[in-house]
Amino acid sequence: MTELTLEVAQKLLAAQPFSLLVGARVTAFGDGGATLELDIRTELQQQNGFLHGGVLADNAITFAGGSALGPDVLTGGFTISYLRPAQGAILRAGAKVAHAGRRQATCTCELTTIDDAGTPTLCAIAQGTVITR
Amino acid sequence: MTELTLEVAQKLLAAQPFSLLVGARVTAFGDGGATLELDIRTELQQQNGFLHGGVLADNAITFAGGSALGPDVLTGGFTISYLRPAQGAILRAGAKVAHAGRRQATCTCELTTIDDAGTPTLCAIAQGTVITR
Amino acid sequence: MTELTLEVAQKLLAAQPFSLLVGARVTAFGDGGATLELDIRTELQQQNGFLHGGVLADNAITFAGGSALGPDVLTGGFTISYLRPAQGAILRAGAKVAHAGRRQATCTCELTTIDDAGTPTLCAIAQGTVITR
Amino acid sequence: MTELTLEVAQKLLAAQPFSLLVGARVTAFGDGGATLELDIRTELQQQNGFLHGGVLADNAITFAGGSALGPDVLTGGFTISYLRPAQGAILRAGAKVAHAGRRQATCTCELTTIDDAGTPTLCAIAQGTVITR
Repeated sequence: MTELTLEVAQKLLAAQPFSLLVGARVTAFGDGGATLELDIRTELQQQNGFLHGGVLADNAITFAGGSALGPDVLTGGFTISYLRPAQGAILRAGAKVAHAGRRQATCTCELTTIDDAGTPTLCAIAQGTVITR
Repeated sequence: MTELTLEVAQKLLAAQPFSLLVGARVTAFGDGGATLELDIRTELQQQNGFLHGGVLADNAITFAGGSALGPDVLTGGFTISYLRPAQGAILRAGAKVAHAGRRQATCTCELTTIDDAGTPTLCAIAQGTVITR
Repeated sequence: MTELTLEVAQKLLAAQPFSLLVGARVTAFGDGGATLELDIRTELQQQNGFLHGGVLADNAITFAGGSALGPDVLTGGFTISYLRPAQGAILRAGAKVAHAGRRQATCTCELTTIDDAGTPTLCAIAQGTVITR
Repeated sequence: MTELTLEVAQKLLAAQPFSLLVGARVTAFGDGGATLELDIRTELQQQNGFLHGGVLADNAITFAGGSALGPDVLTGGFTISYLRPAQGAILRAGAKVAHAGRRQATCTCELTTIDDAGTPTLCAIAQGTVITR
């Protein structure tokens, strides 16, 4: 198994066409966690001005799980509760492993928006399960 | 409140930059349900060849909720369980209202892929809550 | 592996002290599904007159998963949305397998209450994952 | 609205027949959180020796939500991921409010078991939504 480092995680994300489409980047990886970010742009918005935060949460959970289980993983499922509109400059999904076995990891994820002054606002919470393929 | 018809639903979706980005379309709307579809294209895939089905499920749940509550709604949260890789020609998210009150609707959603021969395969199930704004 | 029949399922449930405590019974089992019921009694209620439907849904999902995977299973997690108060004579949890692999099954569950006239009312929907131990 | 204090929360729980049945107690309340505990007893177990942790998590989420919204609340739905068997002397559900509006609060909950030496082990994580009635 390739050991997953921030560099390898960034290459994995860069190999995801959908992540390129939404402009996601890995900004932290390791120690049972992963942080993904994207710049909030007009074309990521819904008609009501909100963003599809679920995409980034799903991805961050997969990467956090991969930090415990290795690169060949999938998100088996996840739950997200939206708390506030995702408005600001940056959307950040910080995921952490709550528990990892050999074949499955359960992760939590906090979605925050960062405004131009750098102030974070929690906008969604999620939890999900990552499984080896 | 504008009554929601398939035509209005299609206009609402067309006003979502993110839906344009992923190429989602509303193919059925009304009677407590909504069906969204997208053509499975390379740029929607993840590194493992799977698709971000969560996006379409989230959207279909919002539209199904809107069929009961009116157009000014948001998904408050949802849960998705991925069953199989989303591979094929078309990804379809069929959402139905299980129960609607005045301010909240709870919906279920089945994600299926349709192959070139038109055969559907269930690839994820979801449930979520839609709230008026 | 012991083949699971309605009779075996009833014995398994009878061996669960907690199920005895709440008075749950298996009323249907097999063909990728399981139905559990309990009589709605005062001591199962919360202060607001509602019932802890989550218990029965969790159990029904486990049994439905067991119908596909065999008896040595656990619910790995589940999601429940409460729609209406669980008031009536009987609480019924009907769970079905949406997809089963070798080690994991994903199930949906509808919780209904049955009043004295036998009329069912949907009061919660759930979905969950069952895994082999 | 009655202000909710630990004392009031304990009276509310004592008025829940089901909570009496399982022997749940409120051990902390306020500041956007609530902790419920129960002694792990044989009659709360399932056939496999595990405990129905969902009950306590559901209850703790309701109380945490009530700490923000007032006493007249219900859990609208919740998601739980079981991580490890709930074995030990005490099962503790610690719930916190992640976000509260006027009519809805979203909470997270950690379920831990405490063994005879007082060592806590995380055995499940949950998140749920509490709504005013």
